[in-house]
Amino acid sequence: MPVLPIWAYHFAPNVSHGTQKGMDMKRVAICGASGYSGMELTRLLARHPGVEVVAVASGRWSGQSVRERLGIPGPTGELRYQPTIDPATEVDATFFATPADASQELVPTWQREGQPVLIDLSNAYRADEGWVYGLAEYAREQVAATKQVANPGCYPTATQLGLLPLIRAGLLASGPIIVDAKSGVTGAGRKVSDTLLFNELADNHYPYRVGHHQHVPELERQLEREVIFTPHLIPARRGLLVSCYVPLQAGKSADDVRACLAERYAKEPLVNLAEPGDTVGIGSVAHTPTCRVAVGPTVKQGYARVFSSIDNLLKGAASQAVQNLNLSLGLPETQGLM
Amino acid sequence: MPVLPIWAYHFAPNVSHGTQKGMDMKRVAICGASGYSGMELTRLLARHPGVEVVAVASGRWSGQSVRERLGIPGPTGELRYQPTIDPATEVDATFFATPADASQELVPTWQREGQPVLIDLSNAYRADEGWVYGLAEYAREQVAATKQVANPGCYPTATQLGLLPLIRAGLLASGPIIVDAKSGVTGAGRKVSDTLLFNELADNHYPYRVGHHQHVPELERQLEREVIFTPHLIPARRGLLVSCYVPLQAGKSADDVRACLAERYAKEPLVNLAEPGDTVGIGSVAHTPTCRVAVGPTVKQGYARVFSSIDNLLKGAASQAVQNLNLSLGLPETQGLM
Amino acid sequence: MPVLPIWAYHFAPNVSHGTQKGMDMKRVAICGASGYSGMELTRLLARHPGVEVVAVASGRWSGQSVRERLGIPGPTGELRYQPTIDPATEVDATFFATPADASQELVPTWQREGQPVLIDLSNAYRADEGWVYGLAEYAREQVAATKQVANPGCYPTATQLGLLPLIRAGLLASGPIIVDAKSGVTGAGRKVSDTLLFNELADNHYPYRVGHHQHVPELERQLEREVIFTPHLIPARRGLLVSCYVPLQAGKSADDVRACLAERYAKEPLVNLAEPGDTVGIGSVAHTPTCRVAVGPTVKQGYARVFSSIDNLLKGAASQAVQNLNLSLGLPETQGLM
Amino acid sequence: MPVLPIWAYHFAPNVSHGTQKGMDMKRVAICGASGYSGMELTRLLARHPGVEVVAVASGRWSGQSVRERLGIPGPTGELRYQPTIDPATEVDATFFATPADASQELVPTWQREGQPVLIDLSNAYRADEGWVYGLAEYAREQVAATKQVANPGCYPTATQLGLLPLIRAGLLASGPIIVDAKSGVTGAGRKVSDTLLFNELADNHYPYRVGHHQHVPELERQLEREVIFTPHLIPARRGLLVSCYVPLQAGKSADDVRACLAERYAKEPLVNLAEPGDTVGIGSVAHTPTCRVAVGPTVKQGYARVFSSIDNLLKGAASQAVQNLNLSLGLPETQGLM
Repeated sequence: MPVLPIWAYHFAPNVSHGTQKGMDMKRVAICGASGYSGMELTRLLARHPGVEVVAVASGRWSGQSVRERLGIPGPTGELRYQPTIDPATEVDATFFATPADASQELVPTWQREGQPVLIDLSNAYRADEGWVYGLAEYAREQVAATKQVANPGCYPTATQLGLLPLIRAGLLASGPIIVDAKSGVTGAGRKVSDTLLFNELADNHYPYRVGHHQHVPELERQLEREVIFTPHLIPARRGLLVSCYVPLQAGKSADDVRACLAERYAKEPLVNLAEPGDTVGIGSVAHTPTCRVAVGPTVKQGYARVFSSIDNLLKGAASQAVQNLNLSLGLPETQGLM
Repeated sequence: MPVLPIWAYHFAPNVSHGTQKGMDMKRVAICGASGYSGMELTRLLARHPGVEVVAVASGRWSGQSVRERLGIPGPTGELRYQPTIDPATEVDATFFATPADASQELVPTWQREGQPVLIDLSNAYRADEGWVYGLAEYAREQVAATKQVANPGCYPTATQLGLLPLIRAGLLASGPIIVDAKSGVTGAGRKVSDTLLFNELADNHYPYRVGHHQHVPELERQLEREVIFTPHLIPARRGLLVSCYVPLQAGKSADDVRACLAERYAKEPLVNLAEPGDTVGIGSVAHTPTCRVAVGPTVKQGYARVFSSIDNLLKGAASQAVQNLNLSLGLPETQGLM
Repeated sequence: MPVLPIWAYHFAPNVSHGTQKGMDMKRVAICGASGYSGMELTRLLARHPGVEVVAVASGRWSGQSVRERLGIPGPTGELRYQPTIDPATEVDATFFATPADASQELVPTWQREGQPVLIDLSNAYRADEGWVYGLAEYAREQVAATKQVANPGCYPTATQLGLLPLIRAGLLASGPIIVDAKSGVTGAGRKVSDTLLFNELADNHYPYRVGHHQHVPELERQLEREVIFTPHLIPARRGLLVSCYVPLQAGKSADDVRACLAERYAKEPLVNLAEPGDTVGIGSVAHTPTCRVAVGPTVKQGYARVFSSIDNLLKGAASQAVQNLNLSLGLPETQGLM
Repeated sequence: MPVLPIWAYHFAPNVSHGTQKGMDMKRVAICGASGYSGMELTRLLARHPGVEVVAVASGRWSGQSVRERLGIPGPTGELRYQPTIDPATEVDATFFATPADASQELVPTWQREGQPVLIDLSNAYRADEGWVYGLAEYAREQVAATKQVANPGCYPTATQLGLLPLIRAGLLASGPIIVDAKSGVTGAGRKVSDTLLFNELADNHYPYRVGHHQHVPELERQLEREVIFTPHLIPARRGLLVSCYVPLQAGKSADDVRACLAERYAKEPLVNLAEPGDTVGIGSVAHTPTCRVAVGPTVKQGYARVFSSIDNLLKGAASQAVQNLNLSLGLPETQGLM
């Protein structure tokens, strides 16, 4: 008597959609729909009022319906997973929620004159000149003008949202930037591995890939600064926190740091700055498309602390991909996310 | 540097609502808005396209805004918690997410000729003849015809949804019905108690209130049968499973049980029957308004097993209260829930 | 930079044993030493003052030392895992902490005139007439007189310790016995399976193998009664609780049940009866060799409730195996366990 | 039907001690025996072969027996908690596992000519010149020569064990030292507080007391260096990890750091250095008296990474206090700890 996986049935299966989806819906396809990011993407897009999912691909679930696997009702639920999607399928956009090597195989088959918007969630194209690096809050115009968006990694998203305003405002001095990062276990993807078993992770916490995490080059390229980055696993399913230690220009205070972030994010719908004295926990951003940033109250030896937290599967992957879809297709940026 | 509570910021604070709420919105008030059920209710109603929340009461949070405490954007976020709500406030419905004794004090101040719909989530009025017991799937017409709805308890909701069809179809023989029930820790409410500390509950599991749980009389009244009921705590935040052992009439099989449930729930949007061979876990109903039911594949010594699982804070409290609101005000039953 | 598994380094590696182990130490070997039960067994025996571990077998860890894998200091730590152990090795006892099919292959190679004591932890020999079923508290003399001990399963151990006194005292009437059982995830063994991932089990709880768990025949054979048994997973690493619903003879009370258990277990070092009004949780037996039993305060429809809890890896496997070793070799029964 | 707390019954209650405790046992008393550290201390000392516990104090549990609260068998279990202990009681040593303000009230009543050894676990006397700061591995002779030992805090213990050898060997350059620290929730003590509820901590992770943690002055005094220290809570019951970022002298490598630690700790029974390529997790030190240290494989911008992990309640409190007791009374340093 197999149990349905924990991610299933987050929708009621027998219900017809309240919102009738309109005539000029954007058509989208999802490759890699059975990974954690692909599942979140499918859920978000099924609810998106401006989008119609027309194809989902997954080797693992080939032949099964989205309703059966994710419990999603309505037309998206009726779709069946295909082993692959024909690149000739008529769509406005295609997501690649696939590992980097799979993206590198698949994407070229979709590239052509008049291609749909391609949004890749792996790190295959983040350094590629033909692609826009889709950190949504910092690349709105470029994303709107391209057909190739490389969605940022989860750690780089949180770190950049915390540090970019400071770097651009010239608040940081030279000197090492330390980023001590912690992530829930879905950050490691949906591998069936000994180290991801409940009995190994519950009650545990440790650093991993110290000195050679794949996100470091991406982060340094984007920040245009070296970063001492160390990821750790925490015994939670989702959510990610980066604790950043940054050298300030002489005379700058924690209040200056906070003011800089406050000004930058005052009108951002999906980045939220903690009040002075408040802090940030992964529990308050899990299951949301929001990034929450906090600044430590003191400066010591010239260093300030900036904390930034997101849901690794949403702002760190699927919901940021939807932001990029919206930007790229001319829909309201947060449509389908609230 | 206090941390925001884990339930905060499940909305992005700076965003204006996409959906413009219309002119003929129903006006509702929430008493007891800072308990776990009251917070879920506030979240659901803030998103409900047919409802406008006009007042929220909480002694604990008096003076603070909904945005500050729950991170909810838009007009609901602007509301400030009041110590109490004037019963003369013009509303279509008022929720009481208060403990039973508080409900018994508050409700009478709202009762009058032409009163709004009163929906009480405590057990204060579940046995009261002037009230309709709002197990939504079994009381649609009565709820639509009353102004006083007693929202069922969490354990009784799951148990009745699993067993009522069998009792009504005459499938059950006499003989003891065993209900072994397990709940995540929010089932115990938002008390600051030694037994609800992380260090006491993590890695733990035990029965509690054995032989004298407050839900037993409610359950037996509704089922019109005696029940041997034993609740247990599980180290999870939310979700509830009842494992029911029921005596069948001679000659009846597990397939008969399944067929009976399948027929009853074929068209129910919020009750979902597991496929033969599948089972049910709290992980797949948590954060949903859905009840999921499964039937064990065998009958032994005349007994069948029926499993029923809900989110204790949603179908076991807040989302069922919204179902009752919708039924009572003539809105589509699942509006605001999908 | 691989992380050491969570079960490692529960000993300080550089320390020489305080207790000098004596000359007439019993020599033991462990097959299947890298499963969860085998690891616990290795830990217990390394500390056992009357025992010397002379060989450990594990395909997975072949060539590595016990110190490297488990962090155990002293002579046991110096042992290296072998792919297999030569049955001609001179030992007083051999443990088989192997799956049933592996036990069935290995055990016959050790059986001979003058063989060592064989203690099998799988269910391969529990129904075998040439073997003693080693529920220690109920089989002391038989274990002392045999060279072949089949160690009981975890669920059957807890259930029998709760119910055998009542059955033997004639307190139970005919009628179904319901055993609703819940176990931490190590109960499923050390498989690398999708369903045992942290992300699938955290926040989850569900029944499994309903109607066909491998422990049912063992349980019914031992109790000489039919049992309606349903196991469930709880999101904890170790510990097991059975909630048993039993029909009493007419006129019998919960006090009679408690008195019967109290008398039986008054002098048992490793079975502990909760005081009236107290209950039992897995948190208080985890990491101990003790079984804790509690009786519900009321009888309803002729049914009483008996709760029994153990650590599935200790009293449900490794520590009971050590009890059996001690009984069989003439050592004090709880030696090495306190 | 109250449930026994999770920390109870980690001993089998009816068992007589295997080891007969000898005639020249050291007599000890414990003040503050019902806090988390006090409970661990009681458990350790009950098993200590060279020690007899003669008095335990707790306001909360006054009148109850140690057996009732902790399930400890034998003579220690028979002791009853007293509201206070008469300082004239004839003992060799007294532990104060009390908050700092309580220690400051109690300790002076015990100070006199010929007083017993006083071991205080709070931060009341760590900066006091009349006391020895009992970081056991670094203060053996001083502890052996004093009657007043201030037991180090948990974060400072882990951090010093990781960094002191590097500082003393002159390996560190000037420049900020960053200590990003993470602790399980028992680090916060046994307060009944809203923020320590299961529902607030499960699935959560956040920094706390940023910029003003009480351990910073202790740490800086001991290291004779400024430290940028930030503690975080992790959703686990026990265990603590510090991730330290330290500036190296020019030309020094990660191998130099490792070699320095390897030399210093080669013969330390309770400090264990991870092999090159291995790392350290709290899961492998929880429930042990051991500190485990690892060094990141690379140096970047002149910075190395040192990770150090302990059980906050053992090496960070109770087991280090027992080390200090042993040193101070002339017993083998690790007696009672293995």
